[in-house]
Amino acid sequence: MSAAPPLSAAHDDDCLRADIRLASVPGVGPRSRRALLARFGSAEAVLAARPADLAQVPGVSRKVVEAIVAGGDDRYADGVLGLCRERGVGIVRHGSSDYPGLLARIDDPPGLLFTRGEFLPCDALAVAIVGSRHATAYGRKIAWQLAGGLARAGYTVVSGLARGIDAAAHRGALDAGGRTIAVLGSGVLAVYPPEHHDLAAEIAGRGAVVSEVPPLAEPSRGAFPQRNRIVSGLSLGTIMVQGAETSGAMITARLAGEQGREVFAVPGPIDCRMSRGCHRLIHDGARLVESVDDVLEEFGPLCEATPTAEGREIRVPAELQLGDVERRVLDAVDDQLADGVSADIDEVVAASGLATSQVISTLGVLEMRRILRRVPGNRVARA
Amino acid sequence: MSAAPPLSAAHDDDCLRADIRLASVPGVGPRSRRALLARFGSAEAVLAARPADLAQVPGVSRKVVEAIVAGGDDRYADGVLGLCRERGVGIVRHGSSDYPGLLARIDDPPGLLFTRGEFLPCDALAVAIVGSRHATAYGRKIAWQLAGGLARAGYTVVSGLARGIDAAAHRGALDAGGRTIAVLGSGVLAVYPPEHHDLAAEIAGRGAVVSEVPPLAEPSRGAFPQRNRIVSGLSLGTIMVQGAETSGAMITARLAGEQGREVFAVPGPIDCRMSRGCHRLIHDGARLVESVDDVLEEFGPLCEATPTAEGREIRVPAELQLGDVERRVLDAVDDQLADGVSADIDEVVAASGLATSQVISTLGVLEMRRILRRVPGNRVARA
Repeated sequence: MSAAPPLSAAHDDDCLRADIRLASVPGVGPRSRRALLARFGSAEAVLAARPADLAQVPGVSRKVVEAIVAGGDDRYADGVLGLCRERGVGIVRHGSSDYPGLLARIDDPPGLLFTRGEFLPCDALAVAIVGSRHATAYGRKIAWQLAGGLARAGYTVVSGLARGIDAAAHRGALDAGGRTIAVLGSGVLAVYPPEHHDLAAEIAGRGAVVSEVPPLAEPSRGAFPQRNRIVSGLSLGTIMVQGAETSGAMITARLAGEQGREVFAVPGPIDCRMSRGCHRLIHDGARLVESVDDVLEEFGPLCEATPTAEGREIRVPAELQLGDVERRVLDAVDDQLADGVSADIDEVVAASGLATSQVISTLGVLEMRRILRRVPGNRVARA
Repeated sequence: MSAAPPLSAAHDDDCLRADIRLASVPGVGPRSRRALLARFGSAEAVLAARPADLAQVPGVSRKVVEAIVAGGDDRYADGVLGLCRERGVGIVRHGSSDYPGLLARIDDPPGLLFTRGEFLPCDALAVAIVGSRHATAYGRKIAWQLAGGLARAGYTVVSGLARGIDAAAHRGALDAGGRTIAVLGSGVLAVYPPEHHDLAAEIAGRGAVVSEVPPLAEPSRGAFPQRNRIVSGLSLGTIMVQGAETSGAMITARLAGEQGREVFAVPGPIDCRMSRGCHRLIHDGARLVESVDDVLEEFGPLCEATPTAEGREIRVPAELQLGDVERRVLDAVDDQLADGVSADIDEVVAASGLATSQVISTLGVLEMRRILRRVPGNRVARA
C-alpha cells in the first residue's frame, strides 16, 4: 500500500465517492435520496445498510433496495472522480459552504452538482430566464435584452443552454459583461445541443455550467424536468419569455412558484402560439414584464446578506440599483448602524459629508424603495 | 292658429324641446344636469326657474345660471327637432322605455341620445371594443376578429367610429352579420372622420349611430372623453385592443371599471408602444384576453331578462353560447320552473324528451357554466 493521504482528504474522498455512487443508483431521485439520508445520515451509511432497513424507508421500493445493494462497486465512482479531476470539473456537495444557498432551500435539492466554472457568492442574486426552443425572433430579442439589463444591474442570469430563449438569455448576459449559469440535463462534458459547445465554454469562464448528473451522462428525456427545478431553485425569480402552454419552460415557471420564488412572464401577440404559456401564467397571477424594472422592483429582502460582484454586502436586491448619492447615504446609515439597529439622522448627515436637505430627500427615496424605514426619534433603520 | 295636436304629443314635444335647450346650454354637463333635474323635476322647470333658485344647486356656477336664463329661446330647439324629423334622426330621452338600460345605470347618463338606426332590446348584450387610432396591423386584425367572434355569439359590438381599432371593430361585427353601435363625439349628421361616412350609414342600418350632442355639432376635443363614458356605459364590458398609456381608449377602459363593468385587455409585443396601455390595464387587474371565450366566460347574470336577436329571453350571457341539446334541456327546466323556483329533475327529463343520462350530464354542464344550480330533493333552479 502507498502512503495514506491525510485523513480528512481521504474521508472527503470517501464521502464524495459514496455520494456519486448513491446518485448513480437507478430509481434514487432527489426525494428518495433525501428520505434515505434522513434515515441513515450519509450516503456511505445508505450504501452499507441492510436491505431490510432500506425497505423501511418511505418511497423506497423493493426494486430500489436491490439497486442500492447492487450499487456496491466503488470503481464507477472512482472513474467519475478521476474524470472530474482530469477535466477540471468541480463537485459541489449539498451542505458544503460553496453550495448555492437558494438552491439548498428547495424541497428536493440535488445532492451533488458537477460544475465547470464556479459559483460566486454574488450568484445568490440570480434571475432565471426560460422559454421555448422554438422561440420566434421577437422572443429571442426580448430574452437577450432582459438578460443584458439584468446583468448590467448586477444579476446573474440562469438558464438551461437550450436552443432559442435559453441561448439568447446566456448570450445577453455575456454580451453585457455579466455572469450567467447554465444548468444542463446532460453531463457538463456532454453538452447538448452540440452547437452550444463554445457557448458552454464561454459560460464556464464567466459563471458556471452545472448539472446534477455525472459529467459524461448523455441527455435523457427524464433529466429535463429534473433540471428545471435547479434552474428555478438557483434564482430569486423566473421570467418566462415565450413558450406554448405545454412547454418545459411552463414547468420551470410553475416550479418557481411552488418554490416560493417570483414568477414573471412576458406577453406577446395573441395570434402567436409561442406566447400562450406566458399569457396563461399572467392569467394565473404571474407578474407581467415589459422591462427589467418590472422584475427588479418585485424582489423583497434577501434571506442573508449577499456580496455583489464588486464585493459590497447587500440585503435587498434594490440596493443594486442605487445611484452614487443613494449609495453614499446608505453607507453612512450602515456605518452608524454598527452601534445598534437604528441610526440618528443628524449623525448620518455628518458622516455622509452631504448637505442635510440632500440626505433627507435621499433617505425618502431609500424608504420608498423599502431599503430603510423611519424610526421614532429622528432615526432610521434597515427595513 | 291651426288645430292643436293631441295633448300628449304636444306635451312630448315641449319636453323634448326643453331637453334639447337644456342640453345646449354651455356649461351644463351630465352631472350638473342631473343635479338640476333632481332639484326642479324637468328640463322645462329648470329653464323656467328663477336665477336665485338655480344658483342654489350644487355645482352650478353664476356663469351657468346666466347661460340657463339666456337659453330661453325655443327657436334653436325647434330647429334641432325639425332637422331630426327631416333627416330621420331619432331622439331617445333618459327615462323612456327605449333608452338603453345599461346606460341608464351609470352615474351620469346622457339626458338625450340622438340616433341614426335604432336600439333593439338585444343590444343590452353589448361589448365595447376600443383602442388607438394609430393601431398597428396586428391591433386592427385582432379587433376585427374579436368583434366578429362576439357578433357571431350574439353580442352587439360598441365602439367610437374612429380610425384604427374602432373602425376595425365595427367592420368585424358587420362582416360577421352582427349588430354594432357607433358612439360619436360629434353629431350623428357630422360624422368624423369624413372617410367613415359610408361606414356610419352601414352601421345605422345594422345597429345605431348615436351621440348626445345635436346632429350637426362639429367634433370638439372636449366631446371625446364625454363620449367614452357612453361607449363603456352601453356595454357589459370593454376590451382594450391596443393603445399607448396616454390614449383615449385607456380612459374608456378606466371608465368601464368605475362604472362597475368588466375590463379586458389584449396583450401584445412589449417592444411596441401600442400595447403599453393594455399591459398597464392587465397589471392593474384587467382580464387578459386571447380569445372571445376569455371575454364571454367573465360575464355574470344580467340585471334583467334580455331578449336576444332571435327573440329568446336570457338571464345569463352564457346562454348565448349554448348548443342545441343544452338549449333544449334549459328550456325544459324553464318550463318546469313556471310553477315555482325549482324544477324536479325527473320532470325535466320527461319534458325534454331526451335520455336521462344525457339530461343529467347536460345539467352538469349548465351548472358548471353557472346558469343552473342544484337544489336538495333532486331539483334544479336558475343560478
